Amino acid sequence: MPHTLSQVCETLRRNGISPELVGDPNREIRGVATLEDACDGEIAFLSNPKYEKALQTTRAAAVVVKLDADAPDGMNLIRVSDPYAAITVMIVELYGYRRHRRVPPGPGAFIHPSARVGPNATIHPGATIDEDVVIGADATIYPGCYVGPRTHIGDRVLLFPNVVIYDDTRIGDRVTIHAGSVIGEDGLGYAPVGGKWIKIPQIGTVEIGDDVEIGSNCSIDRATLGRTRIGSGTKFSNLIAIGHGTQIGAHCLFVAQVGLAGSVSVGDHVTMAGQAGIVGHIRIGDNATVGAKAGVTNNVPDGQTVLGQPAIPIRDMRRQVALIGRLPEMNETIRKLEKRIAELESQLGASPRQ
Amino acid sequence: MPHTLSQVCETLRRNGISPELVGDPNREIRGVATLEDACDGEIAFLSNPKYEKALQTTRAAAVVVKLDADAPDGMNLIRVSDPYAAITVMIVELYGYRRHRRVPPGPGAFIHPSARVGPNATIHPGATIDEDVVIGADATIYPGCYVGPRTHIGDRVLLFPNVVIYDDTRIGDRVTIHAGSVIGEDGLGYAPVGGKWIKIPQIGTVEIGDDVEIGSNCSIDRATLGRTRIGSGTKFSNLIAIGHGTQIGAHCLFVAQVGLAGSVSVGDHVTMAGQAGIVGHIRIGDNATVGAKAGVTNNVPDGQTVLGQPAIPIRDMRRQVALIGRLPEMNETIRKLEKRIAELESQLGASPRQ
Amino acid sequence: MPHTLSQVCETLRRNGISPELVGDPNREIRGVATLEDACDGEIAFLSNPKYEKALQTTRAAAVVVKLDADAPDGMNLIRVSDPYAAITVMIVELYGYRRHRRVPPGPGAFIHPSARVGPNATIHPGATIDEDVVIGADATIYPGCYVGPRTHIGDRVLLFPNVVIYDDTRIGDRVTIHAGSVIGEDGLGYAPVGGKWIKIPQIGTVEIGDDVEIGSNCSIDRATLGRTRIGSGTKFSNLIAIGHGTQIGAHCLFVAQVGLAGSVSVGDHVTMAGQAGIVGHIRIGDNATVGAKAGVTNNVPDGQTVLGQPAIPIRDMRRQVALIGRLPEMNETIRKLEKRIAELESQLGASPRQ
Repeated sequence: MPHTLSQVCETLRRNGISPELVGDPNREIRGVATLEDACDGEIAFLSNPKYEKALQTTRAAAVVVKLDADAPDGMNLIRVSDPYAAITVMIVELYGYRRHRRVPPGPGAFIHPSARVGPNATIHPGATIDEDVVIGADATIYPGCYVGPRTHIGDRVLLFPNVVIYDDTRIGDRVTIHAGSVIGEDGLGYAPVGGKWIKIPQIGTVEIGDDVEIGSNCSIDRATLGRTRIGSGTKFSNLIAIGHGTQIGAHCLFVAQVGLAGSVSVGDHVTMAGQAGIVGHIRIGDNATVGAKAGVTNNVPDGQTVLGQPAIPIRDMRRQVALIGRLPEMNETIRKLEKRIAELESQLGASPRQ
Repeated sequence: MPHTLSQVCETLRRNGISPELVGDPNREIRGVATLEDACDGEIAFLSNPKYEKALQTTRAAAVVVKLDADAPDGMNLIRVSDPYAAITVMIVELYGYRRHRRVPPGPGAFIHPSARVGPNATIHPGATIDEDVVIGADATIYPGCYVGPRTHIGDRVLLFPNVVIYDDTRIGDRVTIHAGSVIGEDGLGYAPVGGKWIKIPQIGTVEIGDDVEIGSNCSIDRATLGRTRIGSGTKFSNLIAIGHGTQIGAHCLFVAQVGLAGSVSVGDHVTMAGQAGIVGHIRIGDNATVGAKAGVTNNVPDGQTVLGQPAIPIRDMRRQVALIGRLPEMNETIRKLEKRIAELESQLGASPRQ
Repeated sequence: MPHTLSQVCETLRRNGISPELVGDPNREIRGVATLEDACDGEIAFLSNPKYEKALQTTRAAAVVVKLDADAPDGMNLIRVSDPYAAITVMIVELYGYRRHRRVPPGPGAFIHPSARVGPNATIHPGATIDEDVVIGADATIYPGCYVGPRTHIGDRVLLFPNVVIYDDTRIGDRVTIHAGSVIGEDGLGYAPVGGKWIKIPQIGTVEIGDDVEIGSNCSIDRATLGRTRIGSGTKFSNLIAIGHGTQIGAHCLFVAQVGLAGSVSVGDHVTMAGQAGIVGHIRIGDNATVGAKAGVTNNVPDGQTVLGQPAIPIRDMRRQVALIGRLPEMNETIRKLEKRIAELESQLGASPRQ
């Protein structure tokens, strides 16, 4: 398990990273920690310049830094172009991913006789697999999960405890869904009739691509008609709400508490920061970024970053915020100008106009 | 199961809608889909003008449109005054509502001997019914639900998986609660004593009227004293937080991630758009509308629509947003005026005033 | 169970409160209710001046009011300096805290043989206790809870139904977690490699101090490295998201739907109002207050109250809101000034400048 710094560098090279080692190549590394927490034997990293000061006081055995970073003399360093990528490789190497306890099929899980469970899948006691469900190979389904009728779940899918998946959902391979998330519940689909809301049966479904990760306590509505879609490789944090019929592209990143209304179309590689909200029936282009708490009410072109409520391009929003901050001054200036004009008017004998 | 267009029109008439059929009355309809997804044999609809273009390319067998809508020649049309209401009727007719698997009473459900379960109710394995609970006739309680002591649940109530209902809650008839929602947890009730928070026992309850539908992963606090109330016919989307002692009227519609603090009073037929927030101890009048992301800090009169943070009447907010957008221009104008005044002052030999 | 008003005053005195009784000392009190709901035999209180009018119409047997409050003649009153604290004492005295049904160890709970469960702990059927877990004495774990490998749970901890605690979490004594909350899920930790997101194993943990109460449907990320920490005595409402590695102090109060990004540092006695959001890597000082819906993007000094998006000190924000409200007027003034200047310029024969 322990690696020397030169072995660590070898691992980085195998992963396409070119490290430059400064210091003792035989120093042993037993773990990875933050600059602040690292004890002797642990390697830390510095990526965000906010934490530069911690470099002076860290007890880390070595630190991964940028190629041109300043560092105290005598410190063991691994210099790389992207310390964050390098530390990711080291965490994977030294720790690997979470391992899941296998359980043999047993009486505690409720598996409908019509369901088909793939080879080597683990269904924990306390999980429910309903009619005509298909579960892929090597899937892990924790206690308290419910998988509704006719849902298909791909290979190596991981459902943490208490995930609920409604009927007719399709989930790709290698998808992870964290505890308490709900996929495929009915959206807010009602028609107003005589002052009451008549429920519209939500006959659409949800389709989740491969390699998606969904955080905990998220809610993804099924479509009224057709499909709500989450593209392959997209990652969600927690407490995210996705409305019915919304289509999200591949490799997006959504931070906690983001909310999208229904029938939104989101491109690929879109980032949405925390608590952003998107109204229904608009398009967010590829590679767009939506800032924290933004309220987006219009289409966002490819590549654009928007911020504010209503959201506008970030440069305009920054200018707007700066000007709003200067409102007291502007107001004061206007009052002074009024006085100076009144003065001029009285000098000229002009009658002030309202 | 297949219906001809003339049979579809007959169904609409039975539901109080007057259709005008253009095209082939014998055309067979097998399903309902969006304009974009519809294949031959499916009927689609056009209600939101945003989707007018899709009318040119749809492969739908027929389209439900407004009475005066333009449409390509040769297309089968059903013209109605409200296409959304008409398509609702068709979805109900062609698909009906979700059907729930019945399970006989069995050993997997934990039902306290003191609980009373109504005729034909289904309690799935993995659900827990605690002491002195009363469950109505034809109720369906999915796995992982927990119903706390002394709670009353009406007839035909539907609890999707992992719904948690705390003690002493009252839930009316035909209520649906989606997966992961929690009803009756303690609110944030603490008294500050010596720099610590002392918990106030939350001895109140929650009362939910008939025909309410609650989305997934919502949290509705019990009252400290008295009752938190959700009026009959009100519909919630997902991830909504309701504070202790708040009273919500009938036939309201709340979009995802709305949050109401405690002791709010909400009238009937109120709409709250996504991520809106309401401070405690205020009144939102009947038929009021709260815009997306609005932060409401004052009473809202009946029928008013508010928007913004702090929320103000929507017309004022639109004007405000427009003026904020014009701040760069206003700022520029002020600078020009300053120069022109300085010019005038120098012409008049006046000394500029600060 | 019934107390006379003089016995109630005695109880208050035992709790360090000095009451002044006006009226009948032998009047019997059977319960506590709001001014609006109280029936004969119940005691109510008036703390928030918004409810003064209800004093005229209440049917309460007695009312707890401030020392100098006005009240109708002939009403039984208990005058105290802090009615809210007094009513807390009375609720505790008359009702106590929720009592939890004990269940003997039985076959319905899934307890891994390597787990150690403390004396007198109740693990309900339908709960899962995984490998090497330690559960303290007198803990109560409701159905549907999942406690992951190697997690330690203190004495007298209370987990309401469907709480999920991931591996290696540490939870102090007397902690309460409400239904559906998730502790220790992976945060949004990915490194971008070749247009895809590579998952960084989240090898850190979560540590929750003593006497913490967490509302329902909250999500608290484990740290990437090190620990996410919630300090002793801190109280959360519902649907709160805490990012990986964030550190929260003692005796804080967070209202519903608050969201903190990762690596935030929050001091002691901090209040965050509903739907507030905090960006990553900043510090919120001791005794700071973050207003409802605030979007905090910079450090907040000790004791400061901030509001708005981006958040600024509350006094500045109030001034800003007032000035924004006056924008129509400012705009109008600018236009008038323009005209007056043009007039002056024409009088002087000056050519207007752009």
